[in-house]
Amino acid sequence: MNSFGTIYRTHVFGESHGNLIGVLIDGCPAGIPLAIDDFKEDLSRRKAGASATTSRIEDDIPLIQSGVFNGFTTGAPICIVFENKNIQSKDYDQLKIQPRPGHADFVAQQKFHGFNDHRGGGHFSGRLTLSLVAAGVIAKKIHTGIEVTAKLIEAGGNKNIEEAVALAIKNQDSIGGIVECIVTGLPVGLGEPFFNSVESLISHAVFSIPAIKGIEFGSGFSSARMTGSNHNDSIIDASGKTKTNFAGGINGGITNGNELIFRVAVKPPSSTPQPQQTLNMESGRVEELMVVGRHDLCIALRVPVVVESAVAMVLADLLLVDQIQRQNRSRS
Amino acid sequence: MNSFGTIYRTHVFGESHGNLIGVLIDGCPAGIPLAIDDFKEDLSRRKAGASATTSRIEDDIPLIQSGVFNGFTTGAPICIVFENKNIQSKDYDQLKIQPRPGHADFVAQQKFHGFNDHRGGGHFSGRLTLSLVAAGVIAKKIHTGIEVTAKLIEAGGNKNIEEAVALAIKNQDSIGGIVECIVTGLPVGLGEPFFNSVESLISHAVFSIPAIKGIEFGSGFSSARMTGSNHNDSIIDASGKTKTNFAGGINGGITNGNELIFRVAVKPPSSTPQPQQTLNMESGRVEELMVVGRHDLCIALRVPVVVESAVAMVLADLLLVDQIQRQNRSRS
Amino acid sequence: MNSFGTIYRTHVFGESHGNLIGVLIDGCPAGIPLAIDDFKEDLSRRKAGASATTSRIEDDIPLIQSGVFNGFTTGAPICIVFENKNIQSKDYDQLKIQPRPGHADFVAQQKFHGFNDHRGGGHFSGRLTLSLVAAGVIAKKIHTGIEVTAKLIEAGGNKNIEEAVALAIKNQDSIGGIVECIVTGLPVGLGEPFFNSVESLISHAVFSIPAIKGIEFGSGFSSARMTGSNHNDSIIDASGKTKTNFAGGINGGITNGNELIFRVAVKPPSSTPQPQQTLNMESGRVEELMVVGRHDLCIALRVPVVVESAVAMVLADLLLVDQIQRQNRSRS
Amino acid sequence: MNSFGTIYRTHVFGESHGNLIGVLIDGCPAGIPLAIDDFKEDLSRRKAGASATTSRIEDDIPLIQSGVFNGFTTGAPICIVFENKNIQSKDYDQLKIQPRPGHADFVAQQKFHGFNDHRGGGHFSGRLTLSLVAAGVIAKKIHTGIEVTAKLIEAGGNKNIEEAVALAIKNQDSIGGIVECIVTGLPVGLGEPFFNSVESLISHAVFSIPAIKGIEFGSGFSSARMTGSNHNDSIIDASGKTKTNFAGGINGGITNGNELIFRVAVKPPSSTPQPQQTLNMESGRVEELMVVGRHDLCIALRVPVVVESAVAMVLADLLLVDQIQRQNRSRS
Repeated sequence: MNSFGTIYRTHVFGESHGNLIGVLIDGCPAGIPLAIDDFKEDLSRRKAGASATTSRIEDDIPLIQSGVFNGFTTGAPICIVFENKNIQSKDYDQLKIQPRPGHADFVAQQKFHGFNDHRGGGHFSGRLTLSLVAAGVIAKKIHTGIEVTAKLIEAGGNKNIEEAVALAIKNQDSIGGIVECIVTGLPVGLGEPFFNSVESLISHAVFSIPAIKGIEFGSGFSSARMTGSNHNDSIIDASGKTKTNFAGGINGGITNGNELIFRVAVKPPSSTPQPQQTLNMESGRVEELMVVGRHDLCIALRVPVVVESAVAMVLADLLLVDQIQRQNRSRS
Repeated sequence: MNSFGTIYRTHVFGESHGNLIGVLIDGCPAGIPLAIDDFKEDLSRRKAGASATTSRIEDDIPLIQSGVFNGFTTGAPICIVFENKNIQSKDYDQLKIQPRPGHADFVAQQKFHGFNDHRGGGHFSGRLTLSLVAAGVIAKKIHTGIEVTAKLIEAGGNKNIEEAVALAIKNQDSIGGIVECIVTGLPVGLGEPFFNSVESLISHAVFSIPAIKGIEFGSGFSSARMTGSNHNDSIIDASGKTKTNFAGGINGGITNGNELIFRVAVKPPSSTPQPQQTLNMESGRVEELMVVGRHDLCIALRVPVVVESAVAMVLADLLLVDQIQRQNRSRS
Repeated sequence: MNSFGTIYRTHVFGESHGNLIGVLIDGCPAGIPLAIDDFKEDLSRRKAGASATTSRIEDDIPLIQSGVFNGFTTGAPICIVFENKNIQSKDYDQLKIQPRPGHADFVAQQKFHGFNDHRGGGHFSGRLTLSLVAAGVIAKKIHTGIEVTAKLIEAGGNKNIEEAVALAIKNQDSIGGIVECIVTGLPVGLGEPFFNSVESLISHAVFSIPAIKGIEFGSGFSSARMTGSNHNDSIIDASGKTKTNFAGGINGGITNGNELIFRVAVKPPSSTPQPQQTLNMESGRVEELMVVGRHDLCIALRVPVVVESAVAMVLADLLLVDQIQRQNRSRS
Repeated sequence: MNSFGTIYRTHVFGESHGNLIGVLIDGCPAGIPLAIDDFKEDLSRRKAGASATTSRIEDDIPLIQSGVFNGFTTGAPICIVFENKNIQSKDYDQLKIQPRPGHADFVAQQKFHGFNDHRGGGHFSGRLTLSLVAAGVIAKKIHTGIEVTAKLIEAGGNKNIEEAVALAIKNQDSIGGIVECIVTGLPVGLGEPFFNSVESLISHAVFSIPAIKGIEFGSGFSSARMTGSNHNDSIIDASGKTKTNFAGGINGGITNGNELIFRVAVKPPSSTPQPQQTLNMESGRVEELMVVGRHDLCIALRVPVVVESAVAMVLADLLLVDQIQRQNRSRS
């Protein structure tokens, strides 16, 4: 079920320590200019390397294997792969015996009866988000006049990100954060009441990103403590513009022409440098575990571009589906 | 796109003030006992009638039209409909001219170019959740040893629900709330890392319920302010039981055998008895609007059973898909 | 899996001797005029009543339950049902013990472990084609300038249909036939090379119609005995018109702008008035069986409109999907 | 739409003269042994090289890029690619101006507005069937006790294949053929009446193979000239075995436990060495065309293994879906 979308369909594959990570995009219209350089900016935003991010540095050069000819998409499926080069798999041997808390080691082993590629999390690795970013870069090209912007607005409970990161490094303990995403320029009418509300599709895509624990649109959880007279957004012009935007740009699951706004909670990475107590499957006893390998202290720093990409993928699909209704609207 | 599921597929249809509301369930195994009485309890939990809920009372008798024979499911699609009887459509004529803030009136009109059935919200109405509850009743029968329980844990910012409702009635202003859902008895291994994580599928289904503004699993938004050493759940036995449950029963998108726990935020109903200011499309001016019709002051009171139903539908699908993997696991 | 289509999705349900037969159509654009009278012609072409067709006569009045408002489609799912009234279920009790040869009695019982509604074939009945015809009527309204026409061109091996039917009645033995379908006015470019070739989709839909044993496009089976120099269709103008049409209007799975032409083989109905030898599950012996009930001697007479409907459903979906590519084509 | 399947999902990609041809298989259970050697036999059956087949010889070594670890499938998506090496693209420059009759050149250019990779047919090339064969090899491993066998039973209208091929070489004109496929060992109960009958799914998959013009199951087109009393297959034992097999192993769209048998018609390759008359898009005149490049005189020789693979893919999906029903059957 590594697939998402009705018309603009994204399929991901690959393992953290296998040959490669890849993405197959089907349903992308022909005639969209596409070059390797187009991926650079978003890939570098995702990339490790800053303080508090993992020391595993990969080139992350996208290899376009199909679906692009003479610099343009052809309408055939686009396959893009990223080779894995900087691999140190010996790091991971212990986790078959003592599954890391907070990670998928235990569930993957159970679900796939021990046949899963466990090295570096295998197919569960955060490295798979490379595929999402590549899909997002292409998806953004289908949007016209639409801007998707996500940023980290809080880390470790602190609005000052740098301070929070410095403290995490000092404490040698991982921290979480809040990412906010705003989309401008959306037409009225994307989405469906059942079951493909815009919230449904965005949350579906966003919860594929490792470490996300919650999502809220517009007023979100604070709406639970508001009254209707305060919460309702008065419509103030014929384009549907509202005075306030507690709805976050969505009514009845459909975009209403205002800014789409949502926030996601990112948990602290499970691979923290601190010692942990967890089961050793061989001894049957809870024992201390030090997670080795190269990891991020604040993965939330790298999440914004992945959130943007997931949203871009959803919007590309909604926009293509909407062209049908739009064309039929204009006909009637 | 009024469909959900891979194997256990639920399709909803109908309008608030049309002939009926219905649900078509495909992929339900043959041989499950099913009678009209099975629907009673969950339908009555959803039903209006308590203080602070709408005065529109419908019988809500499920009419099983296909897929059931001699008291058992046949394996063919199950169609269940609920007739609409207690309709007062004249109430809604004004909303074509002055769309209600917070409702889908404006977006529905734009999206469907004015052809939508606007009466009582039409296909966007909360009455469509009847379909979800019916689908949930059948879905729950596919679960064995699994309990899905949702309840309202806070209304209007108050943990004392009765007090909160009494205040809303006194103030004649609608209020929101928080619904918490807990699932026990789940096997390890349901869900997929991409894109069908358990969080992805549950949030997809739950955001189809009108008025939901946010969802969080386990530690949720509070995880953003925690450290890894505090957040990680130590595994303490070979079944995967953990000491804490910040993960909310899910790792890497897969159930880990602990309680699945999540909370959703329910906004205050947009139809509040208070006067509102919003655009009159004819005059082009922002004018006062009193929303007439019969409405709930605290829809959150009726949401728990609908959340349960949406989750039951997701789990039925995941359990059926999982049988494939399970059978192949046992074979190898 | 009672569903077909990507954008224009058709779901069928119901049983021959249950409450009703129905169809749910999702993805139909808003604003298409639709009235009960629109169904009359195609429903009457499907209807029994002529010589050599069953004596079970039903009113077959389509009841539009949702998705239509003030005479136009709303964009919400359209549910249409046909009540079953003229039922004589006692006819069918024997077939649980002695499954009719050529029918689905045996496989249905095995597949659904005896829980299937066996009366009149239940969900396997040819009466389900009512749903296809209803879906086809709406689908045809999405076509502009396209004509789908199927007719019976041969029955019982005889090009003179009346003669063939008269002989079948005289012999009291059922006969088969060949139905040819021609579609004119199609644009160039519908379909996909993999896996949704036009042939793939049409054959998928057409083989849902009971009694179909084969399908061939253009030159069909005779192509196997031709040479390339004879078989190739020379393109003679810039619109893609070809001198011959051995391709049947399709190249590489894509419509080429010429007439789409295909033929299907319809087997003789399994319910023939002749005595048959087949297993009695109780006695464990092969015994004589007289199939009672009311049946068609030449079901092929009623098949053309069902084939048209299945094709119309496929083309509606392809046309809606194509609007996306078309719009993107015109943009580039 | 380059995807097929509900649980065992096959996605194809790549172009004839691009970097590679590939297939992505999702939903394959974990724990199936898989090595490169497993592909050898079927790939070599597909391979060119015999008389009357193209002189383009590729190594066709499958590169397993993901989803396999330590010699077993992991449950994650399996990506397999075949590099293109022996490319002579200059051969194809003329076909942008003078599209080859019988080929997809014209429709591809129209559909994708000229952005398609036209070299060697691009994504429409028969070389894409490599992907199907690779998917088929894995699919066959999911079958237990099932044998899928296709063979060429007639070429150029002659039951003596060698003679037919010799004549085609002598005449320097391409020829077609008939491929018959037989499946033994199938359980009763695979498939659905609507819309996923076994005939629907097999024909859907098989019509993705280039050059197929028709398909018939069991008695096929000859059934149209039979009577019911002759056509019906008497059931002769409790396992569902029938005396005759005009049904071809399928009743009501469901396997009945007898041999599944069908035949497909393969047209003569459009690239015949004979001169042809067809439109020159530049001159606007019908002119002579000699198709250069390296081609098969009788592609039907290479089709059987591709048909087997397409069927294997369908059956793998049906068998996995059936496990659900089977498990629920055994429970009830």
